[in-house]
Amino acid sequence: MDAISVIRTKRDGGTLSPEQIDWVIDAYTRGAVADEQMSALAMAILLNGMDRAEISRWTAAMIASGERMDFSALPRPTADKHSTGGVGDKITLPLAPLVAACGAAVPQLSGRGLGHTGGTLDKLESIPGWRAQLSNAEMLDVLRGVGAVVCAAGDGLAPADKKLYALRDVTGTVEAIPLIASSIMSKKIAEGTGSLVLDVKVGSGAFMKNAEDAAELARTMVGLGTDHGVRTVALLTDMSTPLGRTAGNALEVRESVEVLAGGGPADVVELTLALAREMLHAAGLPDADPARALADGSAMDCWRRMISAQGGDPDAELPVARERHVVTAPASGVLTRLDAYAVGVAAWRLGAGRARKEDPVQAGAGVELHAKPGDTVRAGAPLLTLHTDTPEAFDYAVAALADAVEVGAHHAPAPIVLDGIA
Amino acid sequence: MDAISVIRTKRDGGTLSPEQIDWVIDAYTRGAVADEQMSALAMAILLNGMDRAEISRWTAAMIASGERMDFSALPRPTADKHSTGGVGDKITLPLAPLVAACGAAVPQLSGRGLGHTGGTLDKLESIPGWRAQLSNAEMLDVLRGVGAVVCAAGDGLAPADKKLYALRDVTGTVEAIPLIASSIMSKKIAEGTGSLVLDVKVGSGAFMKNAEDAAELARTMVGLGTDHGVRTVALLTDMSTPLGRTAGNALEVRESVEVLAGGGPADVVELTLALAREMLHAAGLPDADPARALADGSAMDCWRRMISAQGGDPDAELPVARERHVVTAPASGVLTRLDAYAVGVAAWRLGAGRARKEDPVQAGAGVELHAKPGDTVRAGAPLLTLHTDTPEAFDYAVAALADAVEVGAHHAPAPIVLDGIA
Repeated sequence: MDAISVIRTKRDGGTLSPEQIDWVIDAYTRGAVADEQMSALAMAILLNGMDRAEISRWTAAMIASGERMDFSALPRPTADKHSTGGVGDKITLPLAPLVAACGAAVPQLSGRGLGHTGGTLDKLESIPGWRAQLSNAEMLDVLRGVGAVVCAAGDGLAPADKKLYALRDVTGTVEAIPLIASSIMSKKIAEGTGSLVLDVKVGSGAFMKNAEDAAELARTMVGLGTDHGVRTVALLTDMSTPLGRTAGNALEVRESVEVLAGGGPADVVELTLALAREMLHAAGLPDADPARALADGSAMDCWRRMISAQGGDPDAELPVARERHVVTAPASGVLTRLDAYAVGVAAWRLGAGRARKEDPVQAGAGVELHAKPGDTVRAGAPLLTLHTDTPEAFDYAVAALADAVEVGAHHAPAPIVLDGIA
Repeated sequence: MDAISVIRTKRDGGTLSPEQIDWVIDAYTRGAVADEQMSALAMAILLNGMDRAEISRWTAAMIASGERMDFSALPRPTADKHSTGGVGDKITLPLAPLVAACGAAVPQLSGRGLGHTGGTLDKLESIPGWRAQLSNAEMLDVLRGVGAVVCAAGDGLAPADKKLYALRDVTGTVEAIPLIASSIMSKKIAEGTGSLVLDVKVGSGAFMKNAEDAAELARTMVGLGTDHGVRTVALLTDMSTPLGRTAGNALEVRESVEVLAGGGPADVVELTLALAREMLHAAGLPDADPARALADGSAMDCWRRMISAQGGDPDAELPVARERHVVTAPASGVLTRLDAYAVGVAAWRLGAGRARKEDPVQAGAGVELHAKPGDTVRAGAPLLTLHTDTPEAFDYAVAALADAVEVGAHHAPAPIVLDGIA
C-alpha cells in the first residue's frame, strides 16, 4: 500500500477499498503519509466524491485513530445535538439543560468560532469562571450529576480528524460533503452518544448556501450515524437571517437565559423546542414535555447547576462592551431582509469572532438587532446596535452591513424548520 | 492574493488569472505557498484542466522563476530536441552531433532516467571520463567549439519547475497534460534554443499510452513554444516496441556509435534522420543533408569532439556487465510483439535504471534484442540477452518479460513516425 496508488484510485474516479481507507488514515495520523499527499487526496475526493460505503469506512477509520467514550453505564439515555453553525446560533445554551431537565443525558462536545460564525465555547466563556476544558472523568461527573455538560473535545478524540481538518482549512478542501460529514460524525460517534439530532443550517449565514447541498450533507450524516449505531435525525433550518436578536458572546448568553426564564425571541424558543423534541424522541423519551420544562423553571435550574459544575457563576454580571454605535433603518416600512452573513461578519469584525485559531475574542462585542424581518421599522430609528471594546472597528463593521438591510412593503413569514431528514 | 483563493478558482472550474498564476508560482518558489497547497492546486488542475492562455502564463511564470540562457550571440542557429522518453531511446546520442555536423548548434539539456525509461545522461556517463555537469560558461564553450553539447540543466533554470516536479512525483499529479507540457517547455524555453523538435512517444513503453493523449500533449507543447517565440514542431512516434536492439546505458552508447559509423538498426537510423531533418528545417537550414553527414563521417567527427570536450574518451572500452542470461523464443514463427514496457522494466531491474533519484545505475546492465517484430524466430533460439552485474536480478527481470513476447504467422510492419504536429 502506498499513498500514490490511493491518490490515483480516487483521482481516476475509482472507489477506495476499505483497506486503502484504513491504511491512508492511519498512515496520515502517524505521519507516514505527508500533508502534500493528503491534500491531493482531499482535492480528488472533493472533485470526484465518495460513495456511502467509502464515507462510512473513512469515518470509522477516523474514529479508530483515537479513543472512544462510553456513556452506556449512565442511568439515562444520551442525546446530543450538532449544528453546522450560523449567526446568533446560541441554541445549545438553552437546549442542553432543557433536554437534561426532561430526562436525557446531554454530553455536548462543542467548538470555538472561526470566521463569521460564533462558537458555543466562546459564548459560555463570557460567564466569569466557567471552564471549557474538562478531563473525561470530570465530564462524566458533570453528566452524571447535572445531566448536561458542554465542553471542549479532548485531544484523544479522532486525532486524524483534527489533523485533516487543519490541513483542509489551508488547502481549499473544506467544502467537500464527504469530508465535512465524516469530520462531524467521527467526533460525535467517538463521543459515545446514543442518539444525535443534527441542525443543518441553510442560507447566507450558513456553511451551506442552498437547500440542495444542505439536504445532501444532512442525508450523508444521518446515513453515517445509522451505519455506526447512533440514532440520528436532521432538521434543515433557516439561516438567511440571524437567530434571535443578538450575535456575540455575552449578548447571546443573556438571550439564552431569557429563553430559560420562559421569555426570549420567538424564533429561538421555536427552534430550541423543535430540537428538544427531536432529541427526546431519539433518546426514547417521546412523552417528555420540553415546553413545560421551560415554563416551570426546571430547565433554568439545570442550567444553573451546569454552569456552576464547570466553575461558572450563574449570577455573575456578564461583560459589557465599552463602546456602542447605532445603525438606523434606511427607510420606513417592513423589514424584508436582514442578512445573516453580513451580521455575522460585522460581529466578527467588532471582536466577537476570530480570524485565526490563536486569536482571542471579546466577550462583550457583537450586534444587537432591534427588528427582525417582518417587523415594521421607521426611517432613522435604531435598527442595530454594534458593541465593541475597539471602537476603531465600527467603520469596518458598518461596511460589512452595507447591503444587509432591505425595507419594503410586505414580508411573507418563512418557517425556521424547513425540513426533517431521518 | 492568497493560496486558498487560487486553489478555489481552479477547484470550482474557473480560469486562473495571469496575476494568480504569477503570484502562486513565485510564492511557491519562495516557500510562501506550502507544498500541501500546491499539491491540492495540482490535483485541481489535473482534474479540471487549464486553457491555452493559462498554460502559457504558467510556463512563463516558471521560466521567470530562474535564469534564462541566451545563445543569440552564436554564429549558428540553435536547434534542440526533446523526447518524452521511451525504452531504448538513445536518439539524442547520434542526433546532436549529426545536426551540429549539418550546421546548427545543439544545446541539449538532458536528464537522468527514472523508472523504466532510460536517461541520456546515464547513457553518456558510461563513457569513461565523461562529465554531465557543466557551468553555463563551459556549456557555451563546447557549443561554440563543437556545435553540440549534451549536459545537465543547471540549478538556476526554472527552479519552480524543479520543485513542482518533485512534488507531483509523490502526490499522484504527474499525469496532468498542462503540467507535463509546462514542465518540459519551461526548461526548453529558458534554455534559450531558437527552435525545438519534440519527439512525443506513444505506446506501452511511453508515458502516453494512447495516440489521443500524445497528440494533445504535442499540440499543447507546440502551442507553448509558439507563444514564447520558439519555432516548435512535434513528431508522434511509436514506442510499443523498444527502439533499436538495446536498452541499457553502455549498450546504447555502442549502438549509437554504430549509427554514427553509418550502420546501426534501421529504426534508429530512420528516426534519427527524421528528427534531424525537422531540427534543421526549424533552424532555417532546410537544404542540409543529414544522411550524407552520417555516411561521410562528419557526424562521427563531431561526436568524438563532443565527447572529448566533456572529458570523455571516445576510444575507451565501454563497461561490460559481468553476467549474462539468454531468453529464448517460445515458438517458431514471426515475432509479432516485443513489448517496450516489459523490456524497459527488465532493463531497470537488471540495474540499468533507478527506482529513486539517489540510486546509482549499472553502466553495463540492460537488455539486448536478437530479433525485432517482423523477424522470423525459431523456438529455443536466443531472443534476448540480459546483462547485469547482479545476477540475483535475472529471475526478477525474466518475470517482467512474462507476457512481453508473441510469436505468430504474420506481422504488418508499422511506421515509426506516426504523425507530425506543427
